[in-house]
Amino acid sequence: MIDHPDVIRPVDHARWQPDKMGKTTLFESPRILVGLNAFEPGQVHALHAHAGMDKVYQVVEGEGVFLLEGRELPMRAGDLLVAPEGVAHGVRNPGPGRLLVLAILAPAP
Amino acid sequence: MIDHPDVIRPVDHARWQPDKMGKTTLFESPRILVGLNAFEPGQVHALHAHAGMDKVYQVVEGEGVFLLEGRELPMRAGDLLVAPEGVAHGVRNPGPGRLLVLAILAPAP
Repeated sequence: MIDHPDVIRPVDHARWQPDKMGKTTLFESPRILVGLNAFEPGQVHALHAHAGMDKVYQVVEGEGVFLLEGRELPMRAGDLLVAPEGVAHGVRNPGPGRLLVLAILAPAP
Repeated sequence: MIDHPDVIRPVDHARWQPDKMGKTTLFESPRILVGLNAFEPGQVHALHAHAGMDKVYQVVEGEGVFLLEGRELPMRAGDLLVAPEGVAHGVRNPGPGRLLVLAILAPAP
């Protein structure tokens, strides 16, 4: 969590974990959570949904497969995807590279 | 405004205007507004603040100067900046290239 407003280079804050997706919180308020999800090759964030909360994904680096309402959407750096509240979504990194994703939730969980 | 959840390539949705910053809404709900601000060289978004609303900026392409609490912060593609509620912020494109910025507001205005 970064306390003072300043320029954030997301890639510098990624947390990579060997056993599961790594999470970082870049900013959090009652209104919004700005975080990073870091996927080593083969790691996944299983399909799930949030009631009353929208999620915006953006690929920071790498390539991945985003799951949305039963569809599989390939995404690459710069691509953005919105999972509106109640819509099941997930992420999978088929590899071979790392996948870093900006994940913004509104309101914060 | 995009009605159906799908992969969004932000650069494809930029609206450039010769007279002032161009705006696009990519997604909007009561909880969040995901939009684009497109700055031709020399265009600005004057310093302003939002009560009870956080803003997340991310540079999609180009380079610009972000104003935050009286500071001037140079930013380039990929950089992220949060203007928490009540904190005055703005953007200036000194040129010579175009500047495209993702602007996320929570909750939506």
